[in-house]
Amino acid sequence: MRNIDEHNITAAVQARLDACPNPRLKEIVSALVQHLHDFVREVRLTEDEWMRGIEFLTATGRMCDDKRQEFILLSDTLGVSMLTVALNQSRPPGATEATVFGPFHVDDAPRVDAGADLAGGAPGETLFAEIEVVDPDGNAIAGAEVDVWQADEEGLYDVQRPELGDQRRARGVLVTDARGRTHFRSIVPTAYPVPTDGPVGKMLVATGRHPWRPAHVHFLVRAPGYRTLITHLFRDPDPYLDSDVVFGVRSSLIGRFEHHDRGPLADGPYTTLRHRFVLAPELPEGA
Amino acid sequence: MRNIDEHNITAAVQARLDACPNPRLKEIVSALVQHLHDFVREVRLTEDEWMRGIEFLTATGRMCDDKRQEFILLSDTLGVSMLTVALNQSRPPGATEATVFGPFHVDDAPRVDAGADLAGGAPGETLFAEIEVVDPDGNAIAGAEVDVWQADEEGLYDVQRPELGDQRRARGVLVTDARGRTHFRSIVPTAYPVPTDGPVGKMLVATGRHPWRPAHVHFLVRAPGYRTLITHLFRDPDPYLDSDVVFGVRSSLIGRFEHHDRGPLADGPYTTLRHRFVLAPELPEGA
Repeated sequence: MRNIDEHNITAAVQARLDACPNPRLKEIVSALVQHLHDFVREVRLTEDEWMRGIEFLTATGRMCDDKRQEFILLSDTLGVSMLTVALNQSRPPGATEATVFGPFHVDDAPRVDAGADLAGGAPGETLFAEIEVVDPDGNAIAGAEVDVWQADEEGLYDVQRPELGDQRRARGVLVTDARGRTHFRSIVPTAYPVPTDGPVGKMLVATGRHPWRPAHVHFLVRAPGYRTLITHLFRDPDPYLDSDVVFGVRSSLIGRFEHHDRGPLADGPYTTLRHRFVLAPELPEGA
Repeated sequence: MRNIDEHNITAAVQARLDACPNPRLKEIVSALVQHLHDFVREVRLTEDEWMRGIEFLTATGRMCDDKRQEFILLSDTLGVSMLTVALNQSRPPGATEATVFGPFHVDDAPRVDAGADLAGGAPGETLFAEIEVVDPDGNAIAGAEVDVWQADEEGLYDVQRPELGDQRRARGVLVTDARGRTHFRSIVPTAYPVPTDGPVGKMLVATGRHPWRPAHVHFLVRAPGYRTLITHLFRDPDPYLDSDVVFGVRSSLIGRFEHHDRGPLADGPYTTLRHRFVLAPELPEGA
């Protein structure tokens, strides 16, 4: 142990985990060490590059606060988030697919009644959304929590607008009624770039990648006895449906956004969206 | 690109790097994505575990400031730092070996004259150190910068003692004379635990690892035309020489620490240390 070299160091680090009391933690850390070391060996990382990596991780951490989660953005843009979602995707046939959580969820979104206008002044064409939450047999799930969040017409979430302070807009939490339904008013989502003012944005520029996400609305749907669903509804057409910077698009998540030049719901043009979310039952203990 | 799954996502992410203008950056990011994804697939990371990972990285980043580098500590304790040092170790025969940088170097250590007492009040047995810096042929290197830092008798660096504010002690930067020599007074290093009050400490506890480093003094030695040397001198005997938490011990870096119950250099007992650092010439451009 006094003369570690590039060949024996991985086993030496893994041997230190012999006393780890948690078998799953031991498995994860041991595998992480193996793959991290394999990466460093494969590229023969220089000491300058190592320090650049330390500085990158540090800057990423220091960008994080209660309104910004730069490590989630990093995981998203490297495909790690969507890979994790894909690995845990197994659901009964017909259950709604999941996609990435993203960095812009907040825990203190306003709880609102059905029919509320979530926009709260956020700019954009009016959207009327009707949501239904059911089980795989099509039975209504009453009392399901439907947490909605989205960017505005300029592609910004409320938490990205310092002028708003702690004011929340274009987000809200609804609860389904006895028929498993709720509805809300909001704004039509547009494509937007992920934030490029931080380390992850610098990484995207440096690697020649565009930072765009296709237009979408986020949903987090949960009800007792069912697996929590974290997903989006995407709008088609959109120039970035085939090159989402976070790899989150799934065909089944293209929503039925319908534009109306005129109609009974509003004075000017508006868009409607109807969607049925199918929740999978909770997995049994230990599954 | 609309229906990424666990099998095709890695190639999809790597394909986004096609326009990367920097071939080395492309190589590094592409390999990082491969190994990160392989890790996630191998352990079949759950979404809860993914979120725990995000929270761990975020806490690690938020622990970092100008006095604390928790990401270096993480890299050190996972063996990534020593692996990087080992990969870049290639030096001419006889050149002093490198080891980990560690998280406690500061850029504004006091510049002092030969013979200075670096301790600055830090508790510990008196140490008298004589340092020589030479090239691989044994020729003196005059004007070499010798940056020294160490923990005190209680195992703490100055930056770990909030009561010291910005006061620096047990560190300093010296310059070699025409014979390649300098000397200083300090304190004898003792074994100490790496900081366990942050996320890395929690990781060590959770994985059943001890946090100890064997006693050592850090040196960063640099001179124009030579490769910068980042190393330690360890003291033997020490209970942790064979289980250093950061895997940094090398036999060639055991220093000649000699204890004297009495002698001409001080009134009470003291320790002497003599060491010759051999710097490797700078690599030619492009090597």
